Amino acid sequence: MTETPRRPAPSRRSQVAPFEVMDVLDRVAVLRAAGRDVVSLCAGEPSGGAPTLVSEAAARLHASGRALTYTSALGIHELRAEIAAHYSRWYAVDVDPARVAVTTGSSGGFVLAFLAAFDPGDRVALARPGYPAYRNILTALGCEVVEIDCGAGTRFQPTPALLDAASADGPLAGLIVASPANPTGTMVDRAELTALAQWCRANGVRLVSDEIYHGVTYPEPGALDPRGVCAWEIDDTAIVISSFSKYWGMTGWRLGWMLLPDDLVRPVDALAGNVALCPPAPAQYAAVSAFAPESYRECDDAVAEFARTRKLLLDNGSRLGWGESAPPDGAFYYWADLGAQLERWGTSGAYARALLEDAAVAITPGGDFDDRSGGHSVRLSFAAGSTAVAEAIERIEAFNAR
Amino acid sequence: MTETPRRPAPSRRSQVAPFEVMDVLDRVAVLRAAGRDVVSLCAGEPSGGAPTLVSEAAARLHASGRALTYTSALGIHELRAEIAAHYSRWYAVDVDPARVAVTTGSSGGFVLAFLAAFDPGDRVALARPGYPAYRNILTALGCEVVEIDCGAGTRFQPTPALLDAASADGPLAGLIVASPANPTGTMVDRAELTALAQWCRANGVRLVSDEIYHGVTYPEPGALDPRGVCAWEIDDTAIVISSFSKYWGMTGWRLGWMLLPDDLVRPVDALAGNVALCPPAPAQYAAVSAFAPESYRECDDAVAEFARTRKLLLDNGSRLGWGESAPPDGAFYYWADLGAQLERWGTSGAYARALLEDAAVAITPGGDFDDRSGGHSVRLSFAAGSTAVAEAIERIEAFNAR
Repeated sequence: MTETPRRPAPSRRSQVAPFEVMDVLDRVAVLRAAGRDVVSLCAGEPSGGAPTLVSEAAARLHASGRALTYTSALGIHELRAEIAAHYSRWYAVDVDPARVAVTTGSSGGFVLAFLAAFDPGDRVALARPGYPAYRNILTALGCEVVEIDCGAGTRFQPTPALLDAASADGPLAGLIVASPANPTGTMVDRAELTALAQWCRANGVRLVSDEIYHGVTYPEPGALDPRGVCAWEIDDTAIVISSFSKYWGMTGWRLGWMLLPDDLVRPVDALAGNVALCPPAPAQYAAVSAFAPESYRECDDAVAEFARTRKLLLDNGSRLGWGESAPPDGAFYYWADLGAQLERWGTSGAYARALLEDAAVAITPGGDFDDRSGGHSVRLSFAAGSTAVAEAIERIEAFNAR
Repeated sequence: MTETPRRPAPSRRSQVAPFEVMDVLDRVAVLRAAGRDVVSLCAGEPSGGAPTLVSEAAARLHASGRALTYTSALGIHELRAEIAAHYSRWYAVDVDPARVAVTTGSSGGFVLAFLAAFDPGDRVALARPGYPAYRNILTALGCEVVEIDCGAGTRFQPTPALLDAASADGPLAGLIVASPANPTGTMVDRAELTALAQWCRANGVRLVSDEIYHGVTYPEPGALDPRGVCAWEIDDTAIVISSFSKYWGMTGWRLGWMLLPDDLVRPVDALAGNVALCPPAPAQYAAVSAFAPESYRECDDAVAEFARTRKLLLDNGSRLGWGESAPPDGAFYYWADLGAQLERWGTSGAYARALLEDAAVAITPGGDFDDRSGGHSVRLSFAAGSTAVAEAIERIEAFNAR
């Protein structure tokens, strides 16, 4: 081997498109450093932090000086048992703690789920617009991503008819359903999720149910499934993915979990021991307190504030001067077509850049979630609360009128 | 699509061989629950915990109730700067903080490094015996693992001659070098690492240098590279992988880092944002204190105790009744051929099981690290300290004499 060698280069699979929002966030930082009062409605995370009992448990744990060594790859038993009990509390579903896998955020869960369920070349379907990391992780792992264009007519969610059409080019191995969804905030109801689960079962397709926004929901009084419908209420051969990030406000802690079909417990255990060793131990011990009644109360209070902000936005939506918006059933996102603004600005990226420069309001261009028609839409996160959103509405209205 | 469908099944790539040590650890738990006083020398982790200042910083952070939201995908700037400064302190290497990526343990680093540097089908070489997760992660990511049989003659480390031989079946894309190595504890010196780096450069091969055990070293007084040789002292196109787990005793915190070649900064940033979002935020903020002088002193005290235990083991090694052992230059592992015991027991697995049942000493069978000849060897971790190791030596001597 003495010929002129190639130089090592980045892998082909690492050529992931950068997110448009990163440029927005960089610019927010520059403007703020220069003294501008920027209202940022980009962040997909609550700002209130963890429940008090969780923070206190973590503080005590660290103050004790206890050595925090590796845990079991699937997490400490006490937390797995608390998570299982949560399912009987919210959904009346009986979950064996042995089928709960604690993960390093839902991100760690997705990596393990995709590795355990799908081989390179497997076709996995998901909704467009959708959370871009699904697509990017699957691609990095060699799977073929089948994006299903989902519009307002199906509340931006897949349906059996759309899945039939997506199967025309070859059978699917998997389907990812997110409810509430990012970026649209829409949810599938019990009948819709049942139809999707039945379609998956009839077609030998593994259902992956992203339920990380469960509990961040705005049900009518007396609604049947106020926290969202869990896929395991319908079919426990689905993989359920959830997280402490959203309802519990613990994004930076990197802690989530999965409910695993029987046949995937051993594969995920083995993969997790190699790929991650274990989820963060301090977060695991502290998160046991996330299921105390006081913690649920605090989280519900945070959701009540999201609900007030959502109502403000819906009541004043016409002032934004945008087009059709998706029904924000859950999460804290408002996804809207730019309507008349699009004629003036051409793309949501151009609109978002101008809005930031001129009116100091940061929103996320839709292209990050939909590389085909996302240029028409924007995502506004109302996690920042009603004061920030009220101010943003004023500024956007004035900006559009210029 | 109405024919009888296949049932979804675990992926082929999830068929990872279980570790033999898991059975040992399960049995340790059973014996301890039954009241047996088991000396376990399996764990690849220190038991002393994090430096005091790190635990205190974490306790204060959580007590403040501060919301711990997502950080940048590559970590907080303050920690990246501290890590960069550490390289000037230990190795007199000037590192740009922009080329430091904080990761979710070194496990998270390996996943990102392999994704960024290697495509499916790429051939990546590593030493056998070696850390099994390298092999299993690479396989899960579709790479071809080229195991190089490394024996006592090369201190269980690869050499340019061995790499030439390994290239005979096709060019290599990568080489993983671990120094100190797991399970053998051997190190490559400056001349050896230079020769390997030059071979990689001459052959267009990406060098991945696993330096997670740096600082857990036992240099002679006046040794030139007392903490280990960093690959970036030689060639900054290598990927350096390190961790807070071993020297700093923070295994369960899941925090590590990489030094990245220029061309891999953007790919790793993009991949990390999708695959992990960010490393655990509380651990990042606390780990800034890992680089205080008091923290280094505490860690060096822990290493001094490992050194005493290592000396006890070397001074009494003949009492173990085993065969040739690898020179434990660093880490806290003693890797030995079973010698005469092998004739009696057949495999290291059988020996380890009998030793645990009869003498209540747990060690790791070598097959986990070498699926070809590991059945001849065992790994004894002396991280448990001198009291445990002294007791184990007594018990092993008595067991062999039965």
